[in-house]
Amino acid sequence: MEANRVFNFAAGPSTMPEEVLAQAGSEIMNFRSSGMSIMEMSHRSKAFLSVFEETKDTLRRLMKVPDNFEILFLQGGATMQFAMVPMNFITRTGKADYALTGSFATKAADEAKKYGDIAVSASSKDRNHTYIPAQSALKIREDASYFYYCANNTIYGTEWQYTPETPAGVPLVADMSSDILTRFVDWEKYALVFAGAQKNMAPAGVTTVFVNKDYLGTALPCTPVMLDYPTMIKGDSMHNTPPCWCIYMMGLMLKWVEKMGGIPAMEALKRERSKILYDVIDKSSLYKGCAEKDSRSFMNVTFVTGDPEVDKRFVAGAKAAGIENVGGHRSVGGMRASIYNAMPVEGVKALAEYMVEFEKQG
Amino acid sequence: MEANRVFNFAAGPSTMPEEVLAQAGSEIMNFRSSGMSIMEMSHRSKAFLSVFEETKDTLRRLMKVPDNFEILFLQGGATMQFAMVPMNFITRTGKADYALTGSFATKAADEAKKYGDIAVSASSKDRNHTYIPAQSALKIREDASYFYYCANNTIYGTEWQYTPETPAGVPLVADMSSDILTRFVDWEKYALVFAGAQKNMAPAGVTTVFVNKDYLGTALPCTPVMLDYPTMIKGDSMHNTPPCWCIYMMGLMLKWVEKMGGIPAMEALKRERSKILYDVIDKSSLYKGCAEKDSRSFMNVTFVTGDPEVDKRFVAGAKAAGIENVGGHRSVGGMRASIYNAMPVEGVKALAEYMVEFEKQG
Repeated sequence: MEANRVFNFAAGPSTMPEEVLAQAGSEIMNFRSSGMSIMEMSHRSKAFLSVFEETKDTLRRLMKVPDNFEILFLQGGATMQFAMVPMNFITRTGKADYALTGSFATKAADEAKKYGDIAVSASSKDRNHTYIPAQSALKIREDASYFYYCANNTIYGTEWQYTPETPAGVPLVADMSSDILTRFVDWEKYALVFAGAQKNMAPAGVTTVFVNKDYLGTALPCTPVMLDYPTMIKGDSMHNTPPCWCIYMMGLMLKWVEKMGGIPAMEALKRERSKILYDVIDKSSLYKGCAEKDSRSFMNVTFVTGDPEVDKRFVAGAKAAGIENVGGHRSVGGMRASIYNAMPVEGVKALAEYMVEFEKQG
Repeated sequence: MEANRVFNFAAGPSTMPEEVLAQAGSEIMNFRSSGMSIMEMSHRSKAFLSVFEETKDTLRRLMKVPDNFEILFLQGGATMQFAMVPMNFITRTGKADYALTGSFATKAADEAKKYGDIAVSASSKDRNHTYIPAQSALKIREDASYFYYCANNTIYGTEWQYTPETPAGVPLVADMSSDILTRFVDWEKYALVFAGAQKNMAPAGVTTVFVNKDYLGTALPCTPVMLDYPTMIKGDSMHNTPPCWCIYMMGLMLKWVEKMGGIPAMEALKRERSKILYDVIDKSSLYKGCAEKDSRSFMNVTFVTGDPEVDKRFVAGAKAAGIENVGGHRSVGGMRASIYNAMPVEGVKALAEYMVEFEKQG
């Protein structure tokens, strides 16, 4: 790690590889001999379009995205997708089913209620969202336009360990904001996958959407043009000016992922990183993991000491040791270590050592 | 100008001050001794919130924005505002009136038709959008929820030289994407002003919106939460993660504007820059200005030679001389020099000299 840098466990926006930041800095005044910054370029210029195409191609290659899926770079974050998904996909039957496994899944369902008949397939609210419902607990209507779930719940530290099965003809829609690029996706089961990019992919300001064209129909009449997937597909994400800098940064991130070994390497790393922390928790008599063991997230490790004052001391002491943003989400408290693709294993080891030391010293 | 940099006349995204780019590059790895990049920070961190507040405060100070207006930093560009404006403001009477002075004003009106009764107050289509209608030509209904106009028409090179008068109780809504920060706004006449930031304010990916809270009512029931101004106001543009990098860059740009002398300085500069180019056009027997004289834009100087082949040679020759992106919009052809706040006068002089030289050499 470079001098003066810290280990940043923020849940998003989150840490990025130093070499990615260094490259962005080095070409900020003059991108590829163009005589201008990437920020100053027309989005329709050859130089920018080559970045745009490279980024899309790298993503398609890394995630093995089939040809019937379009890759879009949109604005508005996951929350905009909470509306855009039903506006475009609920028209098939007027109904859609949602699994409520946390705050963002619940927000998505609440938003969708404006546009159709929404049913709850399962909820983990009974045990404060500390687990992911089993397949056998999912009630999905046969005439649902889609079944929606949030693959990883950043706040609670839970993650779906399986791809849900649905009745014939009911595709999946998934919010993969916090675990995109950490595993392969079984694309044929999905109508749509989206990811706010600021955790595993890019700085905040771009949302990656994978749309299965086979499921696209007509959007609701009240749908703004910017929220119409066919319009965005037709314009190749450039119906208007896209968030160019964020797309460029995503391109650098994706090349870094590829250089590191792609998804298989990211998958191995996520297991290594999360095991280090869960092992400390499981051996400790001070720390208690928040998520039930079979639902634990590889991305967000949540734990508490049981005493909010001790939690506070833990977070403050970590900061003093160059380990930042390990406080839990403001809605739940405790601790949370977000360990996305760009978090180096040495950062996780530093946190683990700090945890052990903190427990020893009481 | 730094070596290897060009004069970039792109219509947006567009040129930025070198010192702004240099500063962004210098702190990209470690922002204000935080140990992390501004791109890696939680949007709720103290360090980012201080940037956010500075940016808003500087904008309010520069543009003398009164307290009954909220300043928002949103996503989706001007095109998203084309829907967001009627979704929120048409509920007052169900009607709104639009002046069609170009491509983007027309797109805004078309989008608004999804949400209410839209009337055309005036159109400049009869003379290919080469002029701005006079006040006397504007037909605005007394029960319109608002009157909408696009202050500067980037493609055609026209700009409103006056603030429209409306019947009592009908406020203005204006798209100021391409002339924001170049003059003061008579705020009390407006319900809302917006600007896609990638011309005069910041890189692409953030849209600045000034909302008059006195006119805010209830949005249409189908309005997505991300398109509801009251929700955005309540969350101070952070209902979800905002485009942090773009807001940070806007902050740097605004400080540069302030250092240069604020709006009065920008206003003087826009007159100086545009006069240089219009003088060449008016003295030339080769170049013809596209816009009628009393409607000429200070921001986008559009002209043709009358021969598309000569236009092509002009653009190619300019590029070879380090004067880039002076081709007209793909929908109209010819030439366009976009001269926003960050374009140095020396760049405009270089273009003027090239124009004179090109005409001489035939």
